[in-house]
Amino acid sequence: MSLKQQLESDFESRKQWALRRQMGIPNNRRLWVCACMDERLPVDEALGIRGDRGDAHVFRNAGGLITDDAVRSAMLTCNFFGTQEIVIINHTECGMMSAHTETLVNALKEKGIDVDKVQLDPDLPELTLKAGAFGKWIKMYNDVDEVCARQVEYMRNHPLIPDHVTISGWIWEVETGHLRPPHVRVGEKVNTNKAMGAK
Amino acid sequence: MSLKQQLESDFESRKQWALRRQMGIPNNRRLWVCACMDERLPVDEALGIRGDRGDAHVFRNAGGLITDDAVRSAMLTCNFFGTQEIVIINHTECGMMSAHTETLVNALKEKGIDVDKVQLDPDLPELTLKAGAFGKWIKMYNDVDEVCARQVEYMRNHPLIPDHVTISGWIWEVETGHLRPPHVRVGEKVNTNKAMGAK
Amino acid sequence: MSLKQQLESDFESRKQWALRRQMGIPNNRRLWVCACMDERLPVDEALGIRGDRGDAHVFRNAGGLITDDAVRSAMLTCNFFGTQEIVIINHTECGMMSAHTETLVNALKEKGIDVDKVQLDPDLPELTLKAGAFGKWIKMYNDVDEVCARQVEYMRNHPLIPDHVTISGWIWEVETGHLRPPHVRVGEKVNTNKAMGAK
Amino acid sequence: MSLKQQLESDFESRKQWALRRQMGIPNNRRLWVCACMDERLPVDEALGIRGDRGDAHVFRNAGGLITDDAVRSAMLTCNFFGTQEIVIINHTECGMMSAHTETLVNALKEKGIDVDKVQLDPDLPELTLKAGAFGKWIKMYNDVDEVCARQVEYMRNHPLIPDHVTISGWIWEVETGHLRPPHVRVGEKVNTNKAMGAK
Amino acid sequence: MSLKQQLESDFESRKQWALRRQMGIPNNRRLWVCACMDERLPVDEALGIRGDRGDAHVFRNAGGLITDDAVRSAMLTCNFFGTQEIVIINHTECGMMSAHTETLVNALKEKGIDVDKVQLDPDLPELTLKAGAFGKWIKMYNDVDEVCARQVEYMRNHPLIPDHVTISGWIWEVETGHLRPPHVRVGEKVNTNKAMGAK
Amino acid sequence: MSLKQQLESDFESRKQWALRRQMGIPNNRRLWVCACMDERLPVDEALGIRGDRGDAHVFRNAGGLITDDAVRSAMLTCNFFGTQEIVIINHTECGMMSAHTETLVNALKEKGIDVDKVQLDPDLPELTLKAGAFGKWIKMYNDVDEVCARQVEYMRNHPLIPDHVTISGWIWEVETGHLRPPHVRVGEKVNTNKAMGAK
Amino acid sequence: MSLKQQLESDFESRKQWALRRQMGIPNNRRLWVCACMDERLPVDEALGIRGDRGDAHVFRNAGGLITDDAVRSAMLTCNFFGTQEIVIINHTECGMMSAHTETLVNALKEKGIDVDKVQLDPDLPELTLKAGAFGKWIKMYNDVDEVCARQVEYMRNHPLIPDHVTISGWIWEVETGHLRPPHVRVGEKVNTNKAMGAK
Amino acid sequence: MSLKQQLESDFESRKQWALRRQMGIPNNRRLWVCACMDERLPVDEALGIRGDRGDAHVFRNAGGLITDDAVRSAMLTCNFFGTQEIVIINHTECGMMSAHTETLVNALKEKGIDVDKVQLDPDLPELTLKAGAFGKWIKMYNDVDEVCARQVEYMRNHPLIPDHVTISGWIWEVETGHLRPPHVRVGEKVNTNKAMGAK
Repeated sequence: MSLKQQLESDFESRKQWALRRQMGIPNNRRLWVCACMDERLPVDEALGIRGDRGDAHVFRNAGGLITDDAVRSAMLTCNFFGTQEIVIINHTECGMMSAHTETLVNALKEKGIDVDKVQLDPDLPELTLKAGAFGKWIKMYNDVDEVCARQVEYMRNHPLIPDHVTISGWIWEVETGHLRPPHVRVGEKVNTNKAMGAK
Repeated sequence: MSLKQQLESDFESRKQWALRRQMGIPNNRRLWVCACMDERLPVDEALGIRGDRGDAHVFRNAGGLITDDAVRSAMLTCNFFGTQEIVIINHTECGMMSAHTETLVNALKEKGIDVDKVQLDPDLPELTLKAGAFGKWIKMYNDVDEVCARQVEYMRNHPLIPDHVTISGWIWEVETGHLRPPHVRVGEKVNTNKAMGAK
Repeated sequence: MSLKQQLESDFESRKQWALRRQMGIPNNRRLWVCACMDERLPVDEALGIRGDRGDAHVFRNAGGLITDDAVRSAMLTCNFFGTQEIVIINHTECGMMSAHTETLVNALKEKGIDVDKVQLDPDLPELTLKAGAFGKWIKMYNDVDEVCARQVEYMRNHPLIPDHVTISGWIWEVETGHLRPPHVRVGEKVNTNKAMGAK
Repeated sequence: MSLKQQLESDFESRKQWALRRQMGIPNNRRLWVCACMDERLPVDEALGIRGDRGDAHVFRNAGGLITDDAVRSAMLTCNFFGTQEIVIINHTECGMMSAHTETLVNALKEKGIDVDKVQLDPDLPELTLKAGAFGKWIKMYNDVDEVCARQVEYMRNHPLIPDHVTISGWIWEVETGHLRPPHVRVGEKVNTNKAMGAK
Repeated sequence: MSLKQQLESDFESRKQWALRRQMGIPNNRRLWVCACMDERLPVDEALGIRGDRGDAHVFRNAGGLITDDAVRSAMLTCNFFGTQEIVIINHTECGMMSAHTETLVNALKEKGIDVDKVQLDPDLPELTLKAGAFGKWIKMYNDVDEVCARQVEYMRNHPLIPDHVTISGWIWEVETGHLRPPHVRVGEKVNTNKAMGAK
Repeated sequence: MSLKQQLESDFESRKQWALRRQMGIPNNRRLWVCACMDERLPVDEALGIRGDRGDAHVFRNAGGLITDDAVRSAMLTCNFFGTQEIVIINHTECGMMSAHTETLVNALKEKGIDVDKVQLDPDLPELTLKAGAFGKWIKMYNDVDEVCARQVEYMRNHPLIPDHVTISGWIWEVETGHLRPPHVRVGEKVNTNKAMGAK
Repeated sequence: MSLKQQLESDFESRKQWALRRQMGIPNNRRLWVCACMDERLPVDEALGIRGDRGDAHVFRNAGGLITDDAVRSAMLTCNFFGTQEIVIINHTECGMMSAHTETLVNALKEKGIDVDKVQLDPDLPELTLKAGAFGKWIKMYNDVDEVCARQVEYMRNHPLIPDHVTISGWIWEVETGHLRPPHVRVGEKVNTNKAMGAK
Repeated sequence: MSLKQQLESDFESRKQWALRRQMGIPNNRRLWVCACMDERLPVDEALGIRGDRGDAHVFRNAGGLITDDAVRSAMLTCNFFGTQEIVIINHTECGMMSAHTETLVNALKEKGIDVDKVQLDPDLPELTLKAGAFGKWIKMYNDVDEVCARQVEYMRNHPLIPDHVTISGWIWEVETGHLRPPHVRVGEKVNTNKAMGAK
């Protein structure tokens, strides 16, 4: 092969990387991830992917929750960018469990914010919240296992997400540095013979 | 120092990592990032941070746009988790510029979806969109430089974001692998003597 | 310095390593460790020591328990070999919690072993066990936190161990790969807002 | 393979590691090691195993001797945890040869300890020693080659150790950094033509 | 193989490296490169070759332009040293576009240089330039894409270059660190939906 | 320092690299190199510079000779791009010594080329060669030491090169992999006592 | 394979290394090297062998010359230790060419040494030198190429060296860092077209 | 510093390396080593020197013995090349102890060699051996410790070696991979309490 042919091939690869959305090329793993924005959640390590090499679309918000923005982002990648799998990651010790909703709402009010009149999306006044729902909109939750299982159901049933998409939910344990399925804790009870099921 | 003292110190460090939200410890850089979920955007490399070592809260959605979810996430970290700086990253060749809104809306309609009746947030029926605004909700945009500058303004002026927070916006060039400020392109015109300002 | 002097110095170092017990040289950290013999317990990594470079005397048995052999070994190193600190490591999911004593005893009996007549130490017939105590001698236990705390007390109070020796006990979590003090579990309850103490 | 399947497989592996005793999984090499607790004996290097990756159950005490505790530990792993091979390691320049028994006993007596009344195992008063046997219980020995060979026999003949278990004994030479069988010293006589068997 | 044979073979290899021009051995890739002398142009990296291991003859001058010296050098390697491919590299932000010809000529004149009387090649007085052509001889240019394409044509049509030689031209983008063909800029317009061809 | 300030600083550095010619920034070493294009001459290694990090302007042609193109390139960098030192590298076993001029000229004539009518610079018809000087234009030479010394003089005396520029000439020995000054060969005579100056 | 078998095999290997002369095991390459003791001659690198892993018997003296000691050493290895190849290495710039014999002899005499009465071998008074031959015994030489060729002949013809032994001689060039055969210098004449054989 | 100055300095260093004997430069450690030629003796590792970087003159023969050739080589380096220290290395399990002299002599005679008439040094007929001394000339020995000590004395007392030279002798233990002084064996007796001097 002449060097000319090699350089042409290299240029084509570079073009396909930079213009992949124009050219209809999906991400490498045809994957959309929804994860919490927490600084203790290493998404790449948790999933064994290379987020910096084009493996996945990675959506992250406070909690790793299925919001309207999550739906918008997943809708785009699943319907228009070739994605075929959704993985959702919540985590233990999440800030979304660190306080009660009222505590937060009161704190904002004390700062002088009228939470019922705030325009939530500064670019979309058409999006509105019923009066009194501000606290619910913050989405604090009580139990990460329940929340994780619920997020999977939300996506499975949402009309904007195609039926053929594979969907699973996982919990990152900040205390162990491992993923687990919801409601299955390897390390929950490991310190007594009863927990070990001694016979 | 006895080994006992060393082990006590190590245990304390581990506890402070795992329980940092309970204990009121902020992320390392006191930073909240808003970035596009695109697979070509390596957030850690772009910012020179270690996302897997606790440096920042990283919010990502389709486009790296300030949605109500972005506001919610930023509100939480800036008001309750100790964050003092916001960095927003959009990027060239973003999928949000790859098609016109109508094209997408029509495609969804052809799949039989009634876009005006879809419940956007499956967990928050109190959040509603005015009829006809579905297309706008998708947030396709025309010009990444304009969008980036606009996101910064949205955050600067939002009542839920404290005034003392430092805010800046940047554009990741997928074609060069570098960040740049909006409206300043090093490589835009580099191939003529006119572009180089020859005298 | 002549090479002759260098070689003499090197030889002296080698001699001091090989003959350190003859020459009254203690181990590097003046440390005695008592740990379980389990294959999932990486003693060096757990303690941040180099067991292959002379850092510590490392005693290990089934359970990491203070037996008469542990007392014998600790007595020797603390009274005669210069050791000044004791660290005890038990671990979660230990085999010593994996079955009830009776189950094991019965299994041995079914193999035709007369457990009351077995000479326990084949080199020391002077060591005897009261009839019926064989099961207790196996030392299966119920709760690793309780056991760990108890081992520390045994050593603190034993007449063969000098009073000035520093003693601490730790639990290796096989599920997290970290040490913790007894009765303090970082990861026990981390999945609900109640566990996190939300206010 | 979907990422979901990969994550399920990873979780199963982690569970099998953490819960291997519950699940009846033996150590990797089905091996039990008895070695001296000496700081100059690098067990992993000596045997070419990875003690920190689950290869073996490693019992260590003063001398690497077959005590009742060694029998207890070996009995558990050979009868209940799937172990099929025993390797015993003693070593040259062992502290157990560094003094005479009487010297040690007298030193303890001078500290005011009544060696005939000491309860050896603080958790097992049922274990007793005949009066006057305390010195023998310390197990100082005269010749490492003889001792090593004897330990192997003790294990081969003990009723609590199954007959099919493979057993061998080795001596670690602290002066060479190598293992050798008992009574076979490569480097003992290497410095004369007579030693070399010159003809 | 005896060591003698190995050493003879090694010596032959060394001789063939050092005397390859005497022995009629071409460079490894049978390649001649013409590139700009700019310090931002990493020729080896750009082409994926090892210039320090004998891969190519690398000609470099101000601009990477086909001058009479370039023709001389290419003529020698293509006709007499076994070269079969020519690759030409120009680059963006080249100094040859950084000023107008007159500016440079005037600057030299102000230094007291009589540009029409300068002997250009100090070793070849037979080489002369028509009066008034000094500025053109400097070879400042306006547009790197046009220049690159033109250099290829110059070589394709030059009587001293054999017809069978493969020739291609490339532009190194200093702003991206990549090669591209002339007139094809991946990153030129990547920041608007119009540029992306949104439908 | 906020991340915003860090990113601004990084962007400025990148701009200064890409636009250094526009911004009047010289190369790192303020150096212009003239070297042979030979594949056995590793310019970076020979000079201990990083040619791929902006250290020098590197001119290379057949022979590493001071042609009109070399003068043009050196003139530009020394007068307009901030260069203050010139290093010239010729090398042993150069192809320019591998044949006599007439042999080459005859070979070209046999291919049907009219060497007296060839337009040397395809882009500069104003550059002409006196009839009969074609062979001299090829610049074959007889002795690399003489040639190297002569190139230095050409540059020292050329009116287009400023007087303050430091100039030196070196010979790369392909047979040793080292530079040497002209007329000084460490390895020329090293194999007899006479050569070694035995007394 | 049981660990017992592995350890037995390891021990056998160690024994074969340490006792190889007792056990009649030759060196790895069945090679005897005669080289100069000079500090600039890296024997292992020159021959591509591992002298520290048992590859060869390496004899070295002043000059790398075939003395009676060289004969003694080669006789032993070729007749009794299994060696089948001899490689001799002399080198350029050898100290043996750095002075004339008389200069050295006179210098010794000036120190008060009676060179005709010195007992050369302090352990072998039976070895004697004819009066006046002391200077010749020092073995200074004039030409390394001639000397190298001569050493090979000495060995080929010596009655104590078996005929089947492969013998070759090489010269290490300290100025290039390469071996060459005697009388063949790659780099001797490489700087003129005459040396290159230009036609 | 200009690059010119750097290159001049580099060239000077290279010249001083290649021509150090001409220029009167000693080896780096001013050291002469006498070692056995055995393949199990890694001289560099044993002494902690870099033999391939110019640290020492390394003489090696069968046994590492002080022969007339050793005296010749040491005389040259100590009187004329600047050496100030001598280190002698013999080793255990040396081939020189592997057989009795008569066995070797008889084996040579059986091959038809007339050992009393052999010219020992093929280049020096003036060197002669008294009849019947051939066997002694082979220099087989009985005890490496005695031999090592004796070599040191030979050198200390030899008239051709200056008095100020530092001299020491060492034994390489092939069975441990360490040096030791003669008559001091760390590992000789390490396996009994008697050897350890138990009290």
